[in-house]
Amino acid sequence: MRTAFYPGTFDPVTNGHLDLIERTLRLFDRVIVAVGKARDKSPMFTVEERLALIRDAVEGLDGVRVIAFDGLLVNAVRENEAAAVIRGLREVSDFEYEFQMALMNRRLAAEIETVFLMPNERYTYLNSTIVKEVARLGGDLEGLVPENVLAELTRRFGAG
Amino acid sequence: MRTAFYPGTFDPVTNGHLDLIERTLRLFDRVIVAVGKARDKSPMFTVEERLALIRDAVEGLDGVRVIAFDGLLVNAVRENEAAAVIRGLREVSDFEYEFQMALMNRRLAAEIETVFLMPNERYTYLNSTIVKEVARLGGDLEGLVPENVLAELTRRFGAG
Amino acid sequence: MRTAFYPGTFDPVTNGHLDLIERTLRLFDRVIVAVGKARDKSPMFTVEERLALIRDAVEGLDGVRVIAFDGLLVNAVRENEAAAVIRGLREVSDFEYEFQMALMNRRLAAEIETVFLMPNERYTYLNSTIVKEVARLGGDLEGLVPENVLAELTRRFGAG
Amino acid sequence: MRTAFYPGTFDPVTNGHLDLIERTLRLFDRVIVAVGKARDKSPMFTVEERLALIRDAVEGLDGVRVIAFDGLLVNAVRENEAAAVIRGLREVSDFEYEFQMALMNRRLAAEIETVFLMPNERYTYLNSTIVKEVARLGGDLEGLVPENVLAELTRRFGAG
Amino acid sequence: MRTAFYPGTFDPVTNGHLDLIERTLRLFDRVIVAVGKARDKSPMFTVEERLALIRDAVEGLDGVRVIAFDGLLVNAVRENEAAAVIRGLREVSDFEYEFQMALMNRRLAAEIETVFLMPNERYTYLNSTIVKEVARLGGDLEGLVPENVLAELTRRFGAG
Amino acid sequence: MRTAFYPGTFDPVTNGHLDLIERTLRLFDRVIVAVGKARDKSPMFTVEERLALIRDAVEGLDGVRVIAFDGLLVNAVRENEAAAVIRGLREVSDFEYEFQMALMNRRLAAEIETVFLMPNERYTYLNSTIVKEVARLGGDLEGLVPENVLAELTRRFGAG
Repeated sequence: MRTAFYPGTFDPVTNGHLDLIERTLRLFDRVIVAVGKARDKSPMFTVEERLALIRDAVEGLDGVRVIAFDGLLVNAVRENEAAAVIRGLREVSDFEYEFQMALMNRRLAAEIETVFLMPNERYTYLNSTIVKEVARLGGDLEGLVPENVLAELTRRFGAG
Repeated sequence: MRTAFYPGTFDPVTNGHLDLIERTLRLFDRVIVAVGKARDKSPMFTVEERLALIRDAVEGLDGVRVIAFDGLLVNAVRENEAAAVIRGLREVSDFEYEFQMALMNRRLAAEIETVFLMPNERYTYLNSTIVKEVARLGGDLEGLVPENVLAELTRRFGAG
Repeated sequence: MRTAFYPGTFDPVTNGHLDLIERTLRLFDRVIVAVGKARDKSPMFTVEERLALIRDAVEGLDGVRVIAFDGLLVNAVRENEAAAVIRGLREVSDFEYEFQMALMNRRLAAEIETVFLMPNERYTYLNSTIVKEVARLGGDLEGLVPENVLAELTRRFGAG
Repeated sequence: MRTAFYPGTFDPVTNGHLDLIERTLRLFDRVIVAVGKARDKSPMFTVEERLALIRDAVEGLDGVRVIAFDGLLVNAVRENEAAAVIRGLREVSDFEYEFQMALMNRRLAAEIETVFLMPNERYTYLNSTIVKEVARLGGDLEGLVPENVLAELTRRFGAG
Repeated sequence: MRTAFYPGTFDPVTNGHLDLIERTLRLFDRVIVAVGKARDKSPMFTVEERLALIRDAVEGLDGVRVIAFDGLLVNAVRENEAAAVIRGLREVSDFEYEFQMALMNRRLAAEIETVFLMPNERYTYLNSTIVKEVARLGGDLEGLVPENVLAELTRRFGAG
Repeated sequence: MRTAFYPGTFDPVTNGHLDLIERTLRLFDRVIVAVGKARDKSPMFTVEERLALIRDAVEGLDGVRVIAFDGLLVNAVRENEAAAVIRGLREVSDFEYEFQMALMNRRLAAEIETVFLMPNERYTYLNSTIVKEVARLGGDLEGLVPENVLAELTRRFGAG
């Protein structure tokens, strides 16, 4: 049985993230969605809120576990006996940052492979930052985030 | 009659911005230069100062209106009955960010087209951030910003 | 009345090209689709075939003219009294090549502006080369090329 | 049991390819190394020679099968009941071409996932084209290609 | 005698920086390593600490001088009678930022050339930011930073 | 005394090449301009013609030697006792190809450093290929190539 580890801030989870989780499940027996603390950024949602939003959104998907993690990524991967770290690659600018992190992680734990998957092209230019910005300004996010996230953003910022 | 909408922070306006305004006027009947509030950054100039500096710099150009705007870009474009959003493309790193914004805007308002123009190559590597940094350190900005901006920067930071 | 000039090889025309033609028509009064001779490449379709395929595909669109052209692009733009050259920008690698051409064209004819538009993201990774390769190998191109091109490719390569 | 499909021209196989095969074996139960015909290029080695060089180089690795393939990639993947196509990502320029192919393949066969892996950074700038060029000019390729390829290149071009 | 000027924040110095200093010494008679104040960032080490760590790390290398500098880079280069500014180029994202700075510096002081060197590929994805992040999380940095920096990071963050 | 080695096809030499030669002369005592045979391409000018055009264009510049070379670049650099290979970096797409070559050359001859210089931004998008294309089509190249090259292109293709 092979486990994949999908780390991120997920502030909040988007349909792009869910798309990637489903793709991972075709290749691995289990996927652990791991919510990082994002110490340096000021997240909109607490770790607990982010965990709850993901758990709600992945309900019905077999083989998904949602956890919080802190500290060195490779330690969390090892503790969870995962074989691979999953990352979505969408654009050239992702590419270099992701490679830097993947090479550093390989240096820290050579047995862990980073696997890059390509989200649906509908989500190529979607990320949590732009989702929050549009929500703040009252724009429509239908189809870009799961229903529960849409409801929560609407509750916070008014009619979305 | 077709109107173009050119949004930005313009903190402060540079000769690269003015070059783009003139190019837009060859393609559209009117251009609305729209100064965003830049809530997340700490601008050097207030919105009022930025409006005044642009208005002064475009004096004599027919068909230019300078306004402030807040909220969702597509709403401001619609209110002003503009057909297109104008963006300057200078480098690869611009490209991806601009595409992300353009695709989100298209999703929010499918009838608004984003039009990318190429500034004069003299201004390829010019932006407001580097202008402010050089001004702070006392470097010479002659030829990179309009005369009124140069005077204002010199007043603030001493001989430029 | 403003005219846009949309040059290309169009070997063959794809739905990505048609998407760009429609977007151009929102911004300009007329668009001239100009089929280049492609002297250095070995096109699959002759200029006459390419002209016929485009003319058939744009039937019903007002304001489109389809022509062949040879020689210096800026000369053809001037002869047709167009104000702008239209180019689709999809990827970073497009970006640099297109900028090189646009800057050279600006040097040769400073009054002609190159305008970059963004196709529908469905067509981000579509181009004539990959269309021909897939057609040769018998892959399905439904939805990626207009019906008449699909029929022609099927006729040449068998069931597509 | 999950099978990965690793297509390429392998003209000739390099240590970068072998590195990727070993990484794939950590994530999948089997890997099929599939040598394409490369109809459009003029390969240095025939398909048979390329198959023989790879088979020799992967001897001792469990779970690797080496085959030739022709026609549409997704058909070969389906016939071999593989779940994923493996591609190495090394540079930004790889990235866009690979994404174009991966998106077209997804369109042709939605159930096949393309998985991108990162080779050892020692091989970041290694590819078969540069290997052949250096061999032709008599440069030393020790450590960049497997022993049998080195011997073959030396036999063809003299002391390497 | 030709002098090169190598500016940076060096917070802290890494083996990638040291690699570049040694490469510079093959091309120039002297290199001045110039530690910037980094006013806008919050450095982990003070300028004095950074100077001390570099001086310790370059001990034994002839022709290296380590200084602090503030203000406009080109002024510091001129005061030190250096002919060139040295910058390491590792990735595409470096490339554009570095070009912007180099072009602005050329504008401010046309006689100063910016020279880009390529670090050892082992250090391609190494920078001070990722070093600090890994140190904070207790990861192993052996081989990525000089011994004295490793000792200092371990002292601050515990066993590295 | 330090010598730089500037290799290229120079088919034909442009003002961008001359700009780079002058920049190199500020940093090195001598520069050897080395014309490669370009076996795989079909050059417009023979090696002898290219040598003559460069020699004529650099007349009056002290410290420049123009030679032809064949075979492995690092061998030619060593025979000429040069310390560095000079390459111009203009765009992101240059960057990756140049890095690949520079890393391979470093592997073949660790003592030779590749030095990247930035041409005048006027020449950012200039290269020999576009020069030849414009000349063939009768476009004006004044200011982009030296006078003798302009004369030669005009002689071959008619009024330029």
